[in-house]
Amino acid sequence: MNSDKPTILVTNDDGITSPGIAALIHAVKPLGNIVVVAPDSPQSGMGHAITVAKPLRLDPIKLYEGVQCFQSSGTPADCVKLAVAKVLHKKPDLVVSGINHGSNSSISVIYSGTMSAAVEASIENIPAVGFSLVNYSHEADMTAASKIARHIAKLILENGLPQGTVLNVNIPDVPYEEIKGIKICRQANAKYEEEFDERTDPNGRKYYWMVGNFLNLDKGDDTDVWALKNNFVSMVPVQYDMTAHHAISILNNWKLNA
Amino acid sequence: MNSDKPTILVTNDDGITSPGIAALIHAVKPLGNIVVVAPDSPQSGMGHAITVAKPLRLDPIKLYEGVQCFQSSGTPADCVKLAVAKVLHKKPDLVVSGINHGSNSSISVIYSGTMSAAVEASIENIPAVGFSLVNYSHEADMTAASKIARHIAKLILENGLPQGTVLNVNIPDVPYEEIKGIKICRQANAKYEEEFDERTDPNGRKYYWMVGNFLNLDKGDDTDVWALKNNFVSMVPVQYDMTAHHAISILNNWKLNA
Repeated sequence: MNSDKPTILVTNDDGITSPGIAALIHAVKPLGNIVVVAPDSPQSGMGHAITVAKPLRLDPIKLYEGVQCFQSSGTPADCVKLAVAKVLHKKPDLVVSGINHGSNSSISVIYSGTMSAAVEASIENIPAVGFSLVNYSHEADMTAASKIARHIAKLILENGLPQGTVLNVNIPDVPYEEIKGIKICRQANAKYEEEFDERTDPNGRKYYWMVGNFLNLDKGDDTDVWALKNNFVSMVPVQYDMTAHHAISILNNWKLNA
Repeated sequence: MNSDKPTILVTNDDGITSPGIAALIHAVKPLGNIVVVAPDSPQSGMGHAITVAKPLRLDPIKLYEGVQCFQSSGTPADCVKLAVAKVLHKKPDLVVSGINHGSNSSISVIYSGTMSAAVEASIENIPAVGFSLVNYSHEADMTAASKIARHIAKLILENGLPQGTVLNVNIPDVPYEEIKGIKICRQANAKYEEEFDERTDPNGRKYYWMVGNFLNLDKGDDTDVWALKNNFVSMVPVQYDMTAHHAISILNNWKLNA
């Protein structure tokens, strides 16, 4: 390793063999010494899960030319913890997660394994960013997303990030030339309305597939959903202090104590 | 069911047979019609995971006298979605989650399955609260925690909750008489410093157990950690808008676009 160069940890939630992480490794390779620690299988929708009741595997594998790679049985958040404690033995200068196959805008940030890895890094005081391409196909063209990822990773290495802040970057599924720019946004107020597709197994027992329909409740033009719809890259600063500070004064008027 | 009474959904992350959920069912039973939809096995540390790549099971079971109960193969967040769509066919008036065996104060809110169920309800615009007792033992005395849970559930039914806000309630592990009161708090700035206990399996392959050491970085006396240490019940209003609004103006000074 070249010790003058920054150390960049790459991880994701689609698993270490996904096209998205390959694109991200390629994108950030010119910027530093790259180490990959990623899940050995897909972990979509894992939220900020960690593995406490089972032991974890962590094994070196040869996968990407000239890059140190490890696969783990753990979640994306586990991968960041393992990378710092058992692979790097120090904090990296930057953690990049993705490129996720599919959007993580709006409320999806809370369900996203991609973002959980970035948030975990931020809790550890490491600058971090999650990248997602608004296309679920593993055959999607990652050219534009890769260029954007390199540009933003470079900006973070140059500028750092505000304390306790991590970036959620979503890239619209259009050619690079059609992207109008990068827009700093807030998380749109939206939710998934679930339907459950009810089926019967060969033994006569019911089971259900979750089918989520995205429902945007937010007409603002400063949201990530608006930006993506208008061919901007959305960049939402995300924090892990989940306190609803504005609600404290309201609750203090309750008859809490006799 | 008595249609004048509110419908209260009870769930948790320790699984439907845990002593904590039994205590919570008992605590809220006088307040409404109780329906239980909870995981069929422990789901601690699941964060806001949802099940997207596998089908889900949902089966009625007879477990608690006079209470409709369903167990699911899903995560706590899945249980809330399934309860609304496939059991109640409407939104309940309140979702209570817990009583968790172990603290969910401070940064634990982000890893907590207990809180993910409550947060999911809040996304669905249902008033919700997660309860946790600061004692990991399944033999812990739940008497004080049950009294507190009933009191707070009643207050929420009477007062509602501020829009987009859910409550994270932690109860110190002391007798009821020694509890000094309920304190509205902010989430303490803290983190876990992980160590990984490295072992070798009978086949000679390494594996790791995660051991988290809690590290409080916050000297404030308005935090949940402070409250619990001083024998108060901590009540933190939590929101699912994770936007770091204060960081938007900083990032707008970056050279994002050429």
